[in-house]
Amino acid sequence: MTRLLYSLCGADETRPFSPHVWKTKMALAHKGLAYREVPTPFTGIPHIEGGATKTVPLLVDNGTVVIDSFRIALYLDATYPETPSLFRGEGGKALSRFVEGYSQFVVHPAITKIAILDIHDMLAPKDQAYFRENREQRFSRSLEEVAAGREQEIAGFSAKLEPMRHMLKFQPFLGGDSPLFADYILFGALQWLRIVSDAKVLAAGDPVNDWFEGCLDLHDGLGRSVDAA
Amino acid sequence: MTRLLYSLCGADETRPFSPHVWKTKMALAHKGLAYREVPTPFTGIPHIEGGATKTVPLLVDNGTVVIDSFRIALYLDATYPETPSLFRGEGGKALSRFVEGYSQFVVHPAITKIAILDIHDMLAPKDQAYFRENREQRFSRSLEEVAAGREQEIAGFSAKLEPMRHMLKFQPFLGGDSPLFADYILFGALQWLRIVSDAKVLAAGDPVNDWFEGCLDLHDGLGRSVDAA
Repeated sequence: MTRLLYSLCGADETRPFSPHVWKTKMALAHKGLAYREVPTPFTGIPHIEGGATKTVPLLVDNGTVVIDSFRIALYLDATYPETPSLFRGEGGKALSRFVEGYSQFVVHPAITKIAILDIHDMLAPKDQAYFRENREQRFSRSLEEVAAGREQEIAGFSAKLEPMRHMLKFQPFLGGDSPLFADYILFGALQWLRIVSDAKVLAAGDPVNDWFEGCLDLHDGLGRSVDAA
Repeated sequence: MTRLLYSLCGADETRPFSPHVWKTKMALAHKGLAYREVPTPFTGIPHIEGGATKTVPLLVDNGTVVIDSFRIALYLDATYPETPSLFRGEGGKALSRFVEGYSQFVVHPAITKIAILDIHDMLAPKDQAYFRENREQRFSRSLEEVAAGREQEIAGFSAKLEPMRHMLKFQPFLGGDSPLFADYILFGALQWLRIVSDAKVLAAGDPVNDWFEGCLDLHDGLGRSVDAA
């Protein structure tokens, strides 16, 4: 049996940083499924598995290729029903899409403004050139212009997490008493920031900070296998 | 068998407007449970069931008193397991708390700024006095100062719903193929705005608008039983 997970790296292969890949790493650990990780720089992605994808994570599971962190999670739950569920029912599956929307349209844009230059700086020169061109086209602005709002985003970051704070009044995880894929979705975003940037966005004693530290401890401290920036 | 739902009204008893009560009205309809509604003005709430609550909805179900829309939904699912679930599993139950957080900490504050004077104006004089004093103390500002950001909130409202829009790329309801309590949570917020204010926050063709119109059609058009302001 072979299971390969293609992840994203900069110049240092030991510091995978993609939020989406972290969701999948936590999902595989949640289900107790072993894998070999293949760290891949931005410019290596088009060469994965003969051009199978434009993005990572890409999972090869005994010959089955699955792309996209949410689809991988659905695939894992369907393929390995004897392992702990990532969704705990159809309602959990459906509502996780809303959490994904919140992560990608509220949290990710803020992290991008905070950390875009940090990300650039950790890439190898060839990938820096790709990253600058690709992201400047996407945002119609220079990386430096995107980063101009950095301090304001850091100051406003905590307030964006109020929906999390409300939920944590009732339960320790988005998933309830124990974590589910929805936790890994938001963990992935904050882990991305933790690895690429030394920006401090959560205060000690903040319930969201406590939740995040708890997530770093999960699965034998998997999240701590990469040090903070 | 008697089932009473205490709801919130202004001077016109036929226009219940509380977002939280609308969640419960939709939840009861979802489960096919009949009830008698008792419209109650703000200053009547302390007198409900001998002082049982400071807020509505309050449900009396064959002698059992339950307060708070989320707790009522949990109670209904536990008490009437033979009727359609409001959560579809433990994951759905847990993640609905996050949707509640998003509704109350992202959507409600915007609606408050947009509609606080509209709400005031639809109350009877005695309730207007209560509402002004209570809310001005809560916000440490006059109602008029809260409403000063109205136009800006209307302009920025649609962008706050991006997490919904992302979810709707994959499925017609937060609950997946069909609505769950999570849908009623956000429906309640937008229905509140629809009933109290003529502010237009969603454009025709916006998937969130289509979802909301679909929710208004549910359960024999229950949401349309009160006309838009």
